[in-house]
Amino acid sequence: MKKNFMDADFLLTNETAKRLFHKYANPMPIIDYHCHINPAEIAEDRRYDNIAQPWLLGDHYKWRQIRTTGAPEQEITGDADDRVKFERFAQMLDQAIGNPLYHWTHLELQRYFDYEGVLSHKTAAKVWEHCNQKLADPALSVRGLIRKSNVRLICTTDDPIDDLRYHKQLAEDSNWEVKVLPAWRPDKAVNIQQTSFAQYIAKLSEVSGICISDFASLRQALENRLDFFDEMGCVASDHGLDNAFYCPASEMEMDIILKDALAGKAIGAADALKYKTQVLLFLAREYAKRGWVMQLHYGAVRSTNQRMLKQLGPDTGFDCIGNTLDAVTLTQFLNALEETGQLPKTILYSLHPGDNEMLGSVLGCFQGEGIRGKIQQGSAWWFNDTKQGMEQQLTSLANLSLLGGFVGMLTDSRSFLSYTRHEYFRRILCNLIGTWVENGEFPDDDDLLRPLVENISYYNTKNFFGFDV
Amino acid sequence: MKKNFMDADFLLTNETAKRLFHKYANPMPIIDYHCHINPAEIAEDRRYDNIAQPWLLGDHYKWRQIRTTGAPEQEITGDADDRVKFERFAQMLDQAIGNPLYHWTHLELQRYFDYEGVLSHKTAAKVWEHCNQKLADPALSVRGLIRKSNVRLICTTDDPIDDLRYHKQLAEDSNWEVKVLPAWRPDKAVNIQQTSFAQYIAKLSEVSGICISDFASLRQALENRLDFFDEMGCVASDHGLDNAFYCPASEMEMDIILKDALAGKAIGAADALKYKTQVLLFLAREYAKRGWVMQLHYGAVRSTNQRMLKQLGPDTGFDCIGNTLDAVTLTQFLNALEETGQLPKTILYSLHPGDNEMLGSVLGCFQGEGIRGKIQQGSAWWFNDTKQGMEQQLTSLANLSLLGGFVGMLTDSRSFLSYTRHEYFRRILCNLIGTWVENGEFPDDDDLLRPLVENISYYNTKNFFGFDV
Amino acid sequence: MKKNFMDADFLLTNETAKRLFHKYANPMPIIDYHCHINPAEIAEDRRYDNIAQPWLLGDHYKWRQIRTTGAPEQEITGDADDRVKFERFAQMLDQAIGNPLYHWTHLELQRYFDYEGVLSHKTAAKVWEHCNQKLADPALSVRGLIRKSNVRLICTTDDPIDDLRYHKQLAEDSNWEVKVLPAWRPDKAVNIQQTSFAQYIAKLSEVSGICISDFASLRQALENRLDFFDEMGCVASDHGLDNAFYCPASEMEMDIILKDALAGKAIGAADALKYKTQVLLFLAREYAKRGWVMQLHYGAVRSTNQRMLKQLGPDTGFDCIGNTLDAVTLTQFLNALEETGQLPKTILYSLHPGDNEMLGSVLGCFQGEGIRGKIQQGSAWWFNDTKQGMEQQLTSLANLSLLGGFVGMLTDSRSFLSYTRHEYFRRILCNLIGTWVENGEFPDDDDLLRPLVENISYYNTKNFFGFDV
Repeated sequence: MKKNFMDADFLLTNETAKRLFHKYANPMPIIDYHCHINPAEIAEDRRYDNIAQPWLLGDHYKWRQIRTTGAPEQEITGDADDRVKFERFAQMLDQAIGNPLYHWTHLELQRYFDYEGVLSHKTAAKVWEHCNQKLADPALSVRGLIRKSNVRLICTTDDPIDDLRYHKQLAEDSNWEVKVLPAWRPDKAVNIQQTSFAQYIAKLSEVSGICISDFASLRQALENRLDFFDEMGCVASDHGLDNAFYCPASEMEMDIILKDALAGKAIGAADALKYKTQVLLFLAREYAKRGWVMQLHYGAVRSTNQRMLKQLGPDTGFDCIGNTLDAVTLTQFLNALEETGQLPKTILYSLHPGDNEMLGSVLGCFQGEGIRGKIQQGSAWWFNDTKQGMEQQLTSLANLSLLGGFVGMLTDSRSFLSYTRHEYFRRILCNLIGTWVENGEFPDDDDLLRPLVENISYYNTKNFFGFDV
Repeated sequence: MKKNFMDADFLLTNETAKRLFHKYANPMPIIDYHCHINPAEIAEDRRYDNIAQPWLLGDHYKWRQIRTTGAPEQEITGDADDRVKFERFAQMLDQAIGNPLYHWTHLELQRYFDYEGVLSHKTAAKVWEHCNQKLADPALSVRGLIRKSNVRLICTTDDPIDDLRYHKQLAEDSNWEVKVLPAWRPDKAVNIQQTSFAQYIAKLSEVSGICISDFASLRQALENRLDFFDEMGCVASDHGLDNAFYCPASEMEMDIILKDALAGKAIGAADALKYKTQVLLFLAREYAKRGWVMQLHYGAVRSTNQRMLKQLGPDTGFDCIGNTLDAVTLTQFLNALEETGQLPKTILYSLHPGDNEMLGSVLGCFQGEGIRGKIQQGSAWWFNDTKQGMEQQLTSLANLSLLGGFVGMLTDSRSFLSYTRHEYFRRILCNLIGTWVENGEFPDDDDLLRPLVENISYYNTKNFFGFDV
Repeated sequence: MKKNFMDADFLLTNETAKRLFHKYANPMPIIDYHCHINPAEIAEDRRYDNIAQPWLLGDHYKWRQIRTTGAPEQEITGDADDRVKFERFAQMLDQAIGNPLYHWTHLELQRYFDYEGVLSHKTAAKVWEHCNQKLADPALSVRGLIRKSNVRLICTTDDPIDDLRYHKQLAEDSNWEVKVLPAWRPDKAVNIQQTSFAQYIAKLSEVSGICISDFASLRQALENRLDFFDEMGCVASDHGLDNAFYCPASEMEMDIILKDALAGKAIGAADALKYKTQVLLFLAREYAKRGWVMQLHYGAVRSTNQRMLKQLGPDTGFDCIGNTLDAVTLTQFLNALEETGQLPKTILYSLHPGDNEMLGSVLGCFQGEGIRGKIQQGSAWWFNDTKQGMEQQLTSLANLSLLGGFVGMLTDSRSFLSYTRHEYFRRILCNLIGTWVENGEFPDDDDLLRPLVENISYYNTKNFFGFDV
């Protein structure tokens, strides 16, 4: 039967799916355990003048798509009027059938702006007016948006040298009830081949109060910052890695490599892998000691377009999916930690969807006594954060591991409007489960279905990270 | 509801899909921008004595499948009677459930021979008689078939040394209204490790009138031929490449490598990659200068069976899908062109379906101001030219780029009966879009749907290549 | 329409599918041409005290899943009570929605134990009692289970040095009518880098009566054992390989490598590949000579978790999917055999589902005159032996080769309860074919459909291996 465009039963194709979503999934609060929002904007309770501000000024997902229409860069990231940028966006949507941006956009229009229509070249002017009027309401401030979304806890993404002042401020703010915790992202301390590495280590020395001159003092400095993050409530770490590596090295080798890097010498590929391996092993053991979760994000090729990198800097929409992950190396790395009982709770993400089944099969090799789903495959990530991508990740995970123990969704977003991606995920999840039930593949028994849906929507995340919410 | 076998609504599973196909997609003319037909056969308006001639005498897709039944080679490509070959083909079809050949065969029987039944071992004799009678009608000559198919423009595949005499003849033929343009396929000038390379360069020298002795004179000779193709209306180039490569080399290195090759010395793998990189960069810049489209076909392993290569030569059904494409190298190559503003309009094809998402994500990194969908992922190619392969390519493209800007289908065929593959594609496209609409994932608004369907079926191709039709 | 949980029409979503399954597929007997059951247990007609014995004491598929719940190893593979292990299993099932174990478990409960309900934490106690009572019936002995499953022939997996005494005993047992044939699995003679290699070759010398001191005598010893297996009715060989390799070496090199290995020296990676290549080429030619089938199982990474390997040994649930298969190397290997007309009938399996299409395209390059489907892609294997995995393998195979010639399903199992996996496969097969028919993609003609279904379920296997049943 033909359905209406994105109505209350959007993506729910059968009665069981509808029941599971509306009754169990939708009422669950949100824990957004991995995102890139700026905590300062929560602390300051930022307001928006127009819809282009939250939607278009920082979102490289959207920029890429508008570029594909052939629009001039000036009207995408340049100094064109916000209104012009919005029109370019609306025109792009006309061509974006089947794209998650189409659904995200309309979910956001519905949930935050009470606009139930379509955004297209035909309605751009009307939607612009409508949303901007709504944004004048203080209920659509950053804090308003978070509250409206039933969010209980947010983990931001933070550098070890960050002073986390806004996290502190928010924790002490008696007018603010949603937890905003830091997450540890030490990429700059890992990427020894970056030209800014020595400079970064200098800053790390300063912030930690430990003069970093060899691998031992680097570890000490990192420990110092780990302790600080731990005190600030951090329980999640996160690494952006291009491919898997496992090249163990001696302390002496590490000292030589690190000193060379600090002296500004170029580090070769083999030495870089040794350094990265040892730093990552060290950090992983620290996470295990503290009960933190280790998130490994594999497989992006970043800043492929050098001309645009010079013009706009990194993270502006010129990254792509890289090659599939090396299974042998990945398992060697996990094994090195497991052998000494120092493998932390881990979430593995690969940007290549062809890695789904490989990753699903790796999980079962390193599960740990006493921890439910200790090794997880992360939710369909970035370019895979689509209806099809999520269905494939969920199906693969169900085939190869236990779907019932999955920690579920995160936004990975820079925008306060994107909590609807949790709704999108839950609809897809409930539809998948509902379809299995209606096809006779799982019992139609809410004693079994309710915990499945509620756990994947909320409780698994809460328990896996040990969040006190 | 159960559908009849391949009726008017074949592959159209809902009312929206039916409306979109019958109302918008089906009436569109065909631009077949990449195929392997022989223009001489159009010039001469070839006729066929029996159905085995157009179907079986040159089609290695069909040969492979008949070999799989265990039939003797003599009854496939050998001197057996055409009737025997046809019977082998019909018997093979009995086992070919789910294969695109099954659908192509019956679409061709319906559209060109008005035969609405099934071809199987049971009906082989009847179909043989039926088709051969029909072929006696001059309306089923090569020109008749093209006209019947509503084709507006065809790009053939041509070697730089070709004199394009048939293209000239057809352009001047006042009884012929369909454009037949050459497309530039310089593989023989690129594949420096082929034993016939020196011989080929000698011919290129002769045809271009430029004595090729170093890289500068090679470029000059190629430019000369590019100019000739350009005059003949060529706007499309095409390269068959095994994997991505990017190994820049100096002019001096190029001279040494090329001279070695011309002197008949064996060229090592590393030198071959340098040569290929520089030739491809040179050609790409020439394409950009002329506004041509660059098509890169990656990922075939060719002539795997040496015994059959000796017996039948290349392109006889012994090629297969190779490894996935290296994402890093591919983006380095594109970046090298983009950095200097010399990246032409490009269509990327990979024979490995696991590259769909990677390619879809690469597109967005190199889109260009002012050109709609400047970097395209090509239609599901060769072994992927199946219902599932096309659905996967379309869905991946929609997820990662803008489906609305897609240049769409081509036949890649050697046969004048295969224009029905455009119909096959359009049915699959309309069914996908119709399904999304009926599932509430896109508005049911013909102001939006009609341009989507018409553009992907026809106008995007016309505008992307700049065809004057 | 909503279906009941796993009823008679389980997985059959349309009327054609139901007809094909119930009328044609289901009545077919079973040939299980690849499994890991212990023939001694058939010879001794083993009985079970409780359901944990056949289900949980040897099945690493189940162990992995229970580990994922966080259960202690002692209650999985340790000395905990069988009842406790069973309860852990039942609790795990609550989370296993979408997992093939869920369906296998309930198919086994229905077919062997006449239990039509659900196994969950709620019913664990009841199911435990129910099954254990049933197992008291001699009809549920090992022989009873095989007979109940309509099995005609079983191929076990056997080492070249095995004396096959149970196969002999079963062949001579007048109270036993199901053929139990050995299959040749010479991995220990191929894996020259294993520390136990020299020891194994010593045993092979002893068993064959040929003193192995060089490659010629190794070949002689293997021939001797091949002859013995041949006499015992063996027609199937099987190799477990990590990736494709093709590094030919001279007889002299082989002698040096082999002598080094026998002297206990460590063999380097390059030499190991040479040795493996030549041994595999030799064996393949012997298979061709004898008309045997060669099965190549590619792509597992084994024993990734060294701590658990030390604790439990190999094959205990710590293997995973490896990298995709190298297409170039694979075709070089097949070509080396094909060039001299010595390529045996071959079944290719890859553990990476991303290899489906590549493999499907390779088949057509090496098909042989006179043999129907000489080169096959094996049924979805191990981690892919899921509803989705099978649908993908069947669809890919149909797209790229001839589904009608497919040799179909095997259990690959260690359990006498898993013949229901043939039923699971046949349901999925019939549903796929039925769906195509009802969608108008293939004629609704039982003259065509019946042989398709019966051949893939039974006759293709019988004819391909040449089984006399």
